[in-house]
Amino acid sequence: MSDAKKSEGKVRRPRAETPKGFRDYFGAEVTERKAMLDAITGVYHRYGFDPLETSAVETVEALGKFLPDVDRPNEGVFGWQDEDADWLALRYDLTAPLARVAAQFRNDLPSPYRRYAMGPVWRNEKPGPGRFRQFYQCDADTVGSSSVAADAEICAMLSDALEVVGIPRGDYVVKVNNRKVLNGVMEVAGLSGDDKEAERGIVLRAIDKIDRLGDDGVRALLGAGRKDESGDFTKGAGLSDAQAEVVMGFTSAKRASGAETVARLRELVGASVIGAEGVSELETMAELLDRQGYGADRIVLDPGVVRGLGYYTGPVYEAELTFEILDEKGRKRQFGSVAGGGRYDDLVKRFTGQAVPATGVSIGVDRLLAALRAKGRIGGASVGPVVVTVMDRDRMADYMAMVADLRNAGIRAEVYLGNPKNFGNQLKYADKRESPVAVIQGETEAEKGVVILKDLILGAKIAASATLEEWKDRPAQVEVPRADLVAQVRKILGQ
Amino acid sequence: MSDAKKSEGKVRRPRAETPKGFRDYFGAEVTERKAMLDAITGVYHRYGFDPLETSAVETVEALGKFLPDVDRPNEGVFGWQDEDADWLALRYDLTAPLARVAAQFRNDLPSPYRRYAMGPVWRNEKPGPGRFRQFYQCDADTVGSSSVAADAEICAMLSDALEVVGIPRGDYVVKVNNRKVLNGVMEVAGLSGDDKEAERGIVLRAIDKIDRLGDDGVRALLGAGRKDESGDFTKGAGLSDAQAEVVMGFTSAKRASGAETVARLRELVGASVIGAEGVSELETMAELLDRQGYGADRIVLDPGVVRGLGYYTGPVYEAELTFEILDEKGRKRQFGSVAGGGRYDDLVKRFTGQAVPATGVSIGVDRLLAALRAKGRIGGASVGPVVVTVMDRDRMADYMAMVADLRNAGIRAEVYLGNPKNFGNQLKYADKRESPVAVIQGETEAEKGVVILKDLILGAKIAASATLEEWKDRPAQVEVPRADLVAQVRKILGQ
Repeated sequence: MSDAKKSEGKVRRPRAETPKGFRDYFGAEVTERKAMLDAITGVYHRYGFDPLETSAVETVEALGKFLPDVDRPNEGVFGWQDEDADWLALRYDLTAPLARVAAQFRNDLPSPYRRYAMGPVWRNEKPGPGRFRQFYQCDADTVGSSSVAADAEICAMLSDALEVVGIPRGDYVVKVNNRKVLNGVMEVAGLSGDDKEAERGIVLRAIDKIDRLGDDGVRALLGAGRKDESGDFTKGAGLSDAQAEVVMGFTSAKRASGAETVARLRELVGASVIGAEGVSELETMAELLDRQGYGADRIVLDPGVVRGLGYYTGPVYEAELTFEILDEKGRKRQFGSVAGGGRYDDLVKRFTGQAVPATGVSIGVDRLLAALRAKGRIGGASVGPVVVTVMDRDRMADYMAMVADLRNAGIRAEVYLGNPKNFGNQLKYADKRESPVAVIQGETEAEKGVVILKDLILGAKIAASATLEEWKDRPAQVEVPRADLVAQVRKILGQ
Repeated sequence: MSDAKKSEGKVRRPRAETPKGFRDYFGAEVTERKAMLDAITGVYHRYGFDPLETSAVETVEALGKFLPDVDRPNEGVFGWQDEDADWLALRYDLTAPLARVAAQFRNDLPSPYRRYAMGPVWRNEKPGPGRFRQFYQCDADTVGSSSVAADAEICAMLSDALEVVGIPRGDYVVKVNNRKVLNGVMEVAGLSGDDKEAERGIVLRAIDKIDRLGDDGVRALLGAGRKDESGDFTKGAGLSDAQAEVVMGFTSAKRASGAETVARLRELVGASVIGAEGVSELETMAELLDRQGYGADRIVLDPGVVRGLGYYTGPVYEAELTFEILDEKGRKRQFGSVAGGGRYDDLVKRFTGQAVPATGVSIGVDRLLAALRAKGRIGGASVGPVVVTVMDRDRMADYMAMVADLRNAGIRAEVYLGNPKNFGNQLKYADKRESPVAVIQGETEAEKGVVILKDLILGAKIAASATLEEWKDRPAQVEVPRADLVAQVRKILGQ
C-alpha cells in the first residue's frame, strides 16, 4: 500500500448529509408529484396558458429587497456575490421572476400574457417539521388584463385543476373576495388615510387569522392587542369598538347566496366609491362564472378570505378542501387551504414605471399532494419491476436476453446485478423492489428449456396466512417453457 | 399626487434582466424538452430505474472541492456561507449528489440501486455563446454492481433512449471502450508507476482530443508538446517515439468487427494483467449486448473513446450521432457526441471509506434537443389556442361561455382579455398566439344566434398568394349557428 493510501484513513471524511432544511425525493415521491403536475398542466394548457421556466438564479436587484411576507431587507433568500460584484440569489417564488420577465420581454410577449410555471423555489428560513428550504410551487398568472374576466378565468381553472388531480366536486370550494371591498370597509371605519397604513396592515393580518384565532382573537387584535397562550403580546390596531364593529361586520358578511352576500357588502361599504367598485367586481365575477357553469357548489363569494399579502389590489381567491382529516392529536379538522392568489397590479411597475395589471394563483404542491394521499388517491401499493434472478453467473447473457424480451414487450423488468452467490439475497432484493414476479432458471431448468415464475404478491399473501401444507404446495410458483416467458408473466400481472 | 409618488421618479429602477449566463425558457422550449425527457423516462422506467430528485443545494463538503474537470478548489460552483458557518453550494452535476445519497441512505436503498435523475445543474463559469451557467442534465446510474452486465445494460438503455426520442437506428452509434485496456497499454509503454500520473493524465487528455487534433496533434502532445493556431503552447507527456507508437496503436485499434478489435487489443496489451482484464470485459459486454439483440449497427467497440474525466475505472461509453449538419461556417460535419459515461468505483468511498462500484451515463439534454431540431423532429409550426374575440365588452359572459364550451370539448381556447376597443389588436393577438381559429360574434351575429369562425391558417395562406378578388370572397371565414360552435371549430381543426 502506498503512503498516499495509508494516510487516507486519517483524513476526515465528508458527512453524507442533505443540508439542513433540504430533502431528497425518491421513486414514487417523484412520480406522484409529476403525475399531479402533468394533470394540472393539461388544464392550464387547455385554458391557453403557456409554460415559462425562468432561471433559478436572479439578481437580488430584480428580486427586490423584500420577500412579500417579510419586512427585513435581504432576509429570507439564499444570496451570494458574483465576481462582477452583482448580488445574485435563488428565486423565493415564481411571481417575482414573472414580473422581471414581463418587463424584460414586454415587446415580444403576447399581451395579455397567460403563463404557468412549475418548479422549486428556495427560502432561507429556519427549517421546521414539514417546513423545507426548497419546495415546489405551481403558478398560473395572466399579465396585462385589467378585466375581472381574467380573475374569474383563474378561479374556474383552479376548480378544474383540483378536480382533474382527484379532488371530487363537493370536497373543495374556491372562495372569492375583493380587496377593494375591504378598502371600502376601512374607509367607512375611518382607516383610509396615508397615515393609517400601519393600522390597515394589522387589520388585514388579523382578519387573515380568523380561522385560527376566532372572532374574539381578531377583535383583540383590532383593539389594544392580544396575548397568546405562550404569553407573547401582539400589538393591536387600536380601533375603537365602533370601528372594530364595522370590520367584524365585513368578516361575517357571507350569506346563503352570492346575491345576498353582495347585497350585505353593498350595505357595509356605504358611500365608499372604492368599496362599491369592489362589490360590482365581485358581482361581475359571480355572473361570469355562473354563465360558464361554475356555481356555488364550486366557487363562492366569501368575505372571510383576505389573503395576508400586502400586494393584492382587487379580487383575491383561495381554494379550500372541505373534507376532514385527523390532525396529529387525532382530532378531526378540515383539510384547509391548498391554493390561493389574487390581483396585483404593481409588480411590473418596479421595473418599467408603468403599472401592468396582473392576476394569478399559486397551488401549494406539497399540500395538495398530502390531500391526495389523505383521500387515498395516491400512495397505494406500488408494483416494482419483474426481477430475473441469476442462478448461474456464467449464463448472464441468457438472463439478460430474458429481461430484454420482457422489456421489448413493454414489461418493466430487470436482471439482478449484485453478487449472485447468495440466492436469498436476490429474493430479498426482489422484495425490496416490490417486484410482482421473480424469474428463476437454474441449470436443470435451462436443460429442460423452462423457467420458474414466482408470483411474489400471491406468495406474500400465502406466507401471511397459509398452513405449512399449503406452503409446501408452493402454488405461487409455476414452471413454464422459456418460449412462453412473456405471455406467462403477462398472465400473472393480469395484463 | 402625494409626495411619496412624486419622488418615485428619482429612484433608480431595477434592471429587468436575466443574470449574465442564465436564460429563460418559453412555451415550446419547455414543452419540447419535457416531451423528450418524458420519453426517456419511459425507457428508464422499463429498465427498472427509479427516479431520484436530490436538493439543488449541497454542502460544499459533500460536493467535494473539485469539479471533475477543473483542478482549482472551490472553483466552478455557486456557493455561499450559511448562518451556521457551513458552506453551501448549488450542485454542478447529478453524480456528486448521487454519491452523497448512496452513502447517506445505504441501509435503505436496494442494492444494486438503479436510479435516474433529470434536472438543472449550475456552473460558475464564464458564460459564452450557447454556454450557460444553468443547464439540464439527464443521468442514469447503477450503484452497487461490479458486473459489466450493468455497463452493458446502460449502453442498451442509451440506445433505446435515443431511438424513442426520434434518432433512427443508423443515425447514431454507442461506442464502448475500457479504461483498463488503456491502463494496460500505458503499462506496456512504461507509464504505469505512481510517479507517472501526470504523464498519464496528459496522454488521456490527448487521446480524448483525437477527433479535433488528428493523429499528428495527438502525437505532438504525447511527445514534447504542441503549439496551437493561436501560438499557445501545451506541454506534452514527453514520451519517446517508441512509447508514443504504443499509445497511437491503441487509438487506431478499431477493426471491422468487434471480434477483430478485441484480438488487436489483446495483442497491444501484451502481458499486462490489467490490460487483459479490460479486453475480457469488453468481450463480455459485446457478448451480452449481442444476445439482447444490440449488434454493431447500434453498439460498437471503439478504442478511440476514452472520456476525459479522471474518475473512470473500467468501461466507458459515448453516444455519437453520425448524420451530418452544417456548422456555423456552412461546412458539413458530423453532429457528434450527445451522451457519455462509464464506470467509476470510488465516488461513494469519499464518504464511507468503502469502495462502491458504480456505472452510469449522462445525456446532454440541450445537445440532444438540438439534434432533434436538426432532424426536424421538433420545432415545426406550432398551433396555438382558438381565440374568442370580444366585440361587445358587455357580453363578456357570452364569450366566456363559448370558451368554456370549447375547453369542455378538449379544445384549447381562450377569450381575449385585453382592451377590446381596437378589434385589429385582437386579430394581431390571435396571430401572435399562432391561433388556428378566431371566433367573432358582434351584435348582429348575437341577434341571429350565430358566430363567425375565421380560419387563420387558411387565411394566412390566402393572404400570402391570393388576388384581390379571391381575398374579397373571404373563403376563410364562415358563419355558423352558435349551437354548432364546437362541431364547426373541430371541423376546421381537422379533428
